[in-house]
Amino acid sequence: MKDVASAAGVALKTVSRVVNGEPGVHPATAERVRTAIDRLGYSRNESARVLRRGRTATIGLVIEDVADPFYSGLSRAVEEVVIDHGCLLLSGSSGEQPGRERELVETFCARRVDGLIVVPAGEDHTYLRSELEAGTPVVFADRPPGAGLDVDTVLADNVSGAGQAVRHLLGHGHGRIAFLGDDPAIFTAAQRLQGYRAALGGLYDERLVAMRPPSLEAVRADLARMLTLDDPPTAVFAGNGRYTVTVLRALAGRRLALVGFDDFELADLLQPGVTVVAQDPSWMGRVAARRG
Amino acid sequence: MKDVASAAGVALKTVSRVVNGEPGVHPATAERVRTAIDRLGYSRNESARVLRRGRTATIGLVIEDVADPFYSGLSRAVEEVVIDHGCLLLSGSSGEQPGRERELVETFCARRVDGLIVVPAGEDHTYLRSELEAGTPVVFADRPPGAGLDVDTVLADNVSGAGQAVRHLLGHGHGRIAFLGDDPAIFTAAQRLQGYRAALGGLYDERLVAMRPPSLEAVRADLARMLTLDDPPTAVFAGNGRYTVTVLRALAGRRLALVGFDDFELADLLQPGVTVVAQDPSWMGRVAARRG
Repeated sequence: MKDVASAAGVALKTVSRVVNGEPGVHPATAERVRTAIDRLGYSRNESARVLRRGRTATIGLVIEDVADPFYSGLSRAVEEVVIDHGCLLLSGSSGEQPGRERELVETFCARRVDGLIVVPAGEDHTYLRSELEAGTPVVFADRPPGAGLDVDTVLADNVSGAGQAVRHLLGHGHGRIAFLGDDPAIFTAAQRLQGYRAALGGLYDERLVAMRPPSLEAVRADLARMLTLDDPPTAVFAGNGRYTVTVLRALAGRRLALVGFDDFELADLLQPGVTVVAQDPSWMGRVAARRG
Repeated sequence: MKDVASAAGVALKTVSRVVNGEPGVHPATAERVRTAIDRLGYSRNESARVLRRGRTATIGLVIEDVADPFYSGLSRAVEEVVIDHGCLLLSGSSGEQPGRERELVETFCARRVDGLIVVPAGEDHTYLRSELEAGTPVVFADRPPGAGLDVDTVLADNVSGAGQAVRHLLGHGHGRIAFLGDDPAIFTAAQRLQGYRAALGGLYDERLVAMRPPSLEAVRADLARMLTLDDPPTAVFAGNGRYTVTVLRALAGRRLALVGFDDFELADLLQPGVTVVAQDPSWMGRVAARRG
């Protein structure tokens, strides 16, 4: 607090008044104190705790699956912002199950987190209304909330990203492009299908589309079926990072062109290389955390 | 509870007595009830909550870094066991900082988790004593606790794993084997160095050892230095998954034999392939979670 006082050019007592929310400080002075606190970066968490007395100094994060590099990258970025603010991050995975998403959110709320970042699995978030009315900051990321909930949401442009991937393949002479992606009930999967379909226009053929949770067996079966068509695909657009890796394994050296949505570790080390439409989970995590 | 009663062949009231810890049930009967609960798998979390009335039904997990696939794999496995038991997992990363490890542990304890799994960053865990005395189950994983703390710990055999890696390379005619690994203050890194050194015996040369946190710049510099030696290394033993990937990038096509500690995604798709000594983070997570 002494450092904050000296950085803001105010008395120690003034800093104490600001951080404890006591009256008698001019708004411009209070703002200067808060700026100094932010600038000093809460470098010592213990001090930050004291400065934030009366709050729990924890943020809750609900993601889909911690073992998916997209979400672990997002978690890591959220955690960095949260720690920079002298708080701790508590996180949990919904496993794509709406009931578990809700349980996690309610558990975090019951423990009075200061803010909540949610990658939703479900489509009904009315259960969050009372928490929002109580003033808890909530931000959604990667996928929007269900109808009737007015919260900030950080999304990638999935439709135009998928369009870019398809146009890249069209530009290389491919007219038969398969789309292998996750369950279309998932917002991002449906959006990418929409972008794929729009970019293909009259070339769209539903026999080249297979959407379900990724597994090596499923992808092998879907590819095998498509490759027996009279007019088989010469290229694949994979709907997310998990799918790209699974398609690579299923192809086992067969030469189909491949573009994937999402970057993945080691994409640069593969021979031949894999083209990806990269969204940035770290960016998404940072933006969501700063909003919250 | 009706299903449990029917599976255990007891009255509903007996199940209720067991789950609420009331007296008057024969130990063998109580055991049968608990086995039935386990067997029915807590398939509905709501029921599990009721069955576990009076507990918070949450487990805390402290790992090093969620963005490291080793730890996200471990987290995922812990989460699966925890959910199977009708509980929720809350987790956080220490970022290899003892202060943050302690803050996370204390935050979880303040929120009354029913159990705690810790991958420690620090070496002094005496702060956990009061929590252990209060009866909170604590399990350490991947690295042991500091002196004076008597808790179950799940470890891989890092010394013999490193020995296997080195003997594999010796068997292929390599006598000059570099070791690139993480900071030797980290338990697993020190153990792997010990295994490397023991397997090399008289061939050990400290100029072929470089240990610090992995970064592409550091690994490039260390390799460049070693490759200017009169007797340069012809093979590399990489001390963990992060290091293996970083060495692959730093080699940029130069042909040195490489064996890595830890499996990593896509190791199977690289050309030429990379040999790894695979420990199993999922196994470690499951064992730790079941102990807790």
